[in-house]
Parts: sequence; C-alpha cells; structure tokens
Amino acid sequence: MSVQAEWIAVDWGTSRLRAWAMADGAVIAQAHSDQGMCCLQPDAFEGALLALIEGWLTGGTTDVVACGMVGARQGWMEAPYVAAPCPALPEQLVQVPCKDVRLRVFLVPGLKQVQPADVMRGEETQMAGFLSQNKSWDGVICLPGTHTKWAHVSADEVVSFRSFMTGEMFKLLTQQSVLRHSVGAGWNAEAFQAGLDMTLSRPESLASELFSIRAGDLLLGTSPDVATARLSGLLLGAELAASRPYWLGQQIAVIGESSLAGVYAEALKTQGAWVEVVDADAMTRAGLQAARAQVS
Amino acid sequence: MSVQAEWIAVDWGTSRLRAWAMADGAVIAQAHSDQGMCCLQPDAFEGALLALIEGWLTGGTTDVVACGMVGARQGWMEAPYVAAPCPALPEQLVQVPCKDVRLRVFLVPGLKQVQPADVMRGEETQMAGFLSQNKSWDGVICLPGTHTKWAHVSADEVVSFRSFMTGEMFKLLTQQSVLRHSVGAGWNAEAFQAGLDMTLSRPESLASELFSIRAGDLLLGTSPDVATARLSGLLLGAELAASRPYWLGQQIAVIGESSLAGVYAEALKTQGAWVEVVDADAMTRAGLQAARAQVS
Repeated sequence: MSVQAEWIAVDWGTSRLRAWAMADGAVIAQAHSDQGMCCLQPDAFEGALLALIEGWLTGGTTDVVACGMVGARQGWMEAPYVAAPCPALPEQLVQVPCKDVRLRVFLVPGLKQVQPADVMRGEETQMAGFLSQNKSWDGVICLPGTHTKWAHVSADEVVSFRSFMTGEMFKLLTQQSVLRHSVGAGWNAEAFQAGLDMTLSRPESLASELFSIRAGDLLLGTSPDVATARLSGLLLGAELAASRPYWLGQQIAVIGESSLAGVYAEALKTQGAWVEVVDADAMTRAGLQAARAQVS
Repeated sequence: MSVQAEWIAVDWGTSRLRAWAMADGAVIAQAHSDQGMCCLQPDAFEGALLALIEGWLTGGTTDVVACGMVGARQGWMEAPYVAAPCPALPEQLVQVPCKDVRLRVFLVPGLKQVQPADVMRGEETQMAGFLSQNKSWDGVICLPGTHTKWAHVSADEVVSFRSFMTGEMFKLLTQQSVLRHSVGAGWNAEAFQAGLDMTLSRPESLASELFSIRAGDLLLGTSPDVATARLSGLLLGAELAASRPYWLGQQIAVIGESSLAGVYAEALKTQGAWVEVVDADAMTRAGLQAARAQVS
C-alpha cells in the first residue's frame, strides 16, 4: 500500500535526519538516516531528504517542515535566530528553494539570547508543540540532551533560557577521560543520589569529586555501576545548582526521551519540585504541525 | 666522548619516558622516548629503558631510580601506594628484578588517601625534591597538570591532598566538545580574569557559562583568544573555589612547567596569596636524588 503524505515533518539534527509522513494529524509512515547536518554540504541536503521521503510524495506539491541544525549557518540554508523574549514558534518560517518542484520546504528558526549569550535549534519546536497542547501555560521547560536547555515560559513567550553542557560532559568523561576505566553501563540509585546531593549543596566540589571516582575504583574497588551513577549525580547536581533560579518554586515540564527525562524528573522531585514528563518526539511533531499551520 | 653515569634518574609517565644521566649531583646527559607506561606490557619495560640508557652504563652496576606510572598496577611492577599522612618520600623503594645484571632499578611508590579517596604517582617525588631543598617547610604545594594536585605539607609529612581534573577537562573541552569550534591557540588576560572571577565567586555558574562560550562565538563573533582564555579562567576558578580550604592563608609553592605554573601563580596572586613558582623537572630530579640516597 502506498503512503500518500499530506505533509512531512522533519527533525534534522547534527548527526541524524528523521522524517514522518503525516495525514489527518497522525503519523502514517516514518523513516530516518544518518545524513545529519554535520556530514552534508549545502547542495546535498535536497538529495538526502528525497532519498528518505520520495516514496511518500503525491502527484502535486508536498510541504516539508523541518527543525534543528538544518537551519544553522553550516546547514542547508540559514534560518536566522529570533531573539528571546519571543514566541517559541516565530511568525516567519524560512522557505528553502528546491530543484524538485514536488517539494516546498520550510525551516523553523532557532532562538537566541544576547545576554547571557545563548542559542537553541530544535528545542524551540518541542516547546511550541507543548505550548500548542497546553494553552496559556506558564512555568519552566527543561529539555535534557547533549546541551540541556532550561527555558522560562510566560504569556505565550520564551522569556529567557540557558544551556548546560551536562550531557556532552558526561559523554566525554565516560568515554574519553581517565574515568572511562572506572565506569560501566549499570546504575546505582543510592550513588546517584549521593552525587546529586553533594554538588547541589556544594557545587564547587564537582572539581575535586570527579577524580575521586577514579581513586575510589583504584583504592576501594568501587563498582562501575556506582561510579557511573555517582558521576551522573555529580554533573546533574551541578546543573541543578546553577539552574535553581529557573526551577525553584515553578511548575516544570521535562521534554525528553523517556530514560533521560526520567532521571531529571526524579532529581527535581527530590528537591520538592512539581514535575511533568513529556515525550520529546511527540512534541517535535506537534511543534512542526503548529509551524505547518502557519504556512498552509 | 662517552657518558659514564654515576646513577640514572627516570621519570616514567603514562605517555612518556624521560631519563637523566647523573654524576656529582649534575645532569651529564638526557634522553626521552614515547615508550610510556600506557603502551608497554610488563616484560617490555626493561628493553624500553635499555634502548634509552644503554650508552650511559659503565662496566659495573648502575642504579636507576624511577618515579611515575611505571609503578602502577598496569606498569612494570606495582609499587603499592603509601597512605598519607606520610613523608613525601616513603622509606622503602621497590626494587624491580632485571635480566640485565648491569641494572639495579628502584621504583618510588605513589601516595594514597582513603577519605576522600585520592591517589598520586610522580608528584610525591617532586614534593620530596622541593622539601629536600627546603627543610622544615610548612605550607601548601600545588602541582598543576592533567590532574592537578593540591597537598598540605606540615612537619615533613604530606598531611592530605586532593586531585582536580582541570587539565584533562580543558583538553577534552577544547579538542572534543562543541567548544572546539570556538577556541584557538591565543590568549586574552582580561577574558581569563573575568572567567576566573565568575567561577571563584559563583562556582555553580561553570555549568551554564561553558555553553555561553559557544553562543558568544555564534552571536557576537567572540575571538578564539578570548574564548580560550575565558574557558581556562572558568575552569581554574572552579578549581580554586574548591581548593580554597587548601590555599587560603597559606604559603604556596607551585611546582610545574613554567607556562602552566605561571597561570596558576597569577590567578592565586589575584586572591592575595603568597606564591613561589618552582620548576617541575628540577624537583623531579632532586626527589629522585633524595630517593637514591636511601638505597646507595
């Protein structure tokens, strides 16, 4: 049975391209490839997209709405950042000229903040999706990932936001640093909590506690599960200490993939915060749907 | 002219092997290779050493005294850690059996601390060298490097110490993280100081300030010099905030290679600390000399 997409939603990040064929507000087909922004020259984007979605195209013109690093300066075409405070979904999308007349491609711009300097691309679409389903919602949205974002939302606008390199630091420390000899794939809830409490109460201790994970392995034979969970707790505690002005006393929505979002939610709950967890992919599609409504 | 070593001093780290031919308390020849501990099986150490120093051997037996990772569990032979509080130079060196009868090889043990868990290998020898030249010195020794050590020395003993992964973090962030696109080889003293002040006064801000370096580049075109110096300042400020119980109100000796030691010394001086900078290689040889005096 052939797929006839009404329109196509695309999440095009640094290392991955994901597409959903949409009809009547539902996903009727999906596909992905490793043709992320990082490995494509500007003139290769259209081909990478067609390779994934050509089977979904009808006889006429099909709208494609894409978010993420595809709109960066090094992407297909720059969709310049819009300055916060602003709505999560800017009024103007950027249309990309295509050779194939069956395609009409729009990019969602990212957001920027001048002081303190910060940027996002992709997360604004997830927030727009969440806000399209939660009208007049005020509070704080946390979007965990390689560069976790915290955003303050009020009166249908993103008021301010900050990024934290916690995810990238965890990856570098577990895969590239001396700690790679001491960590593993397992988990230990108690060690996570102890690490979290340590840096939440004394954020400066992160600098000295990291090497102690290695020393604990050498001297005491600390298990890889404990080492991994403690490292994760220490890094997240440092992030929560720094983002406290965002989340303290606010209602919080964590938009992320389930396991990472769950870790953030559990940590925030131990601090007495009120937290809701929302699926990231569903919010990406809802945000792209809202964006598509602006151009159709 | 042939070199006739009285004894041989060796600094054998993870990635490098360095040797000095010594006579009458002075260096009469030196050599190095990339045959570090990390790339050698236990039975390959003697050959790697001989390849470097064979030309210095006399007809009789020559003592070789070595410090560093060569004495780790994965090294030539384990020289078990000695627990602090203890003298920087333990009474017992570990003699390694050699096939070549011209060699008598001794390893200097590293130090450990059970609570908080910490270890060092190599830095104890530099401290022993410094203390051999500064009798009855009390104060704090800072040894900057991949894993910077801070040690409290009193009554000829290392009382306590802590390690900081600042050097390794700087390397990972500048070479492997998203910040690699924004940093360069240059320097900017003002940006270093601003970063230092930021995390010294608000250590938790490290978590959010890192990504702002990237955003500053994207939005404001911040120069690579400024980005590098700011990153360095932020990381060192976080270390100094965590090590404040060590250095506050103490006399401080920074033992390191000149440029890195200079950065630490300047940063500490801005905090009103009294700091002396000492050359690391000279202290390594002085420490090995003191160790040799124990076995000859």
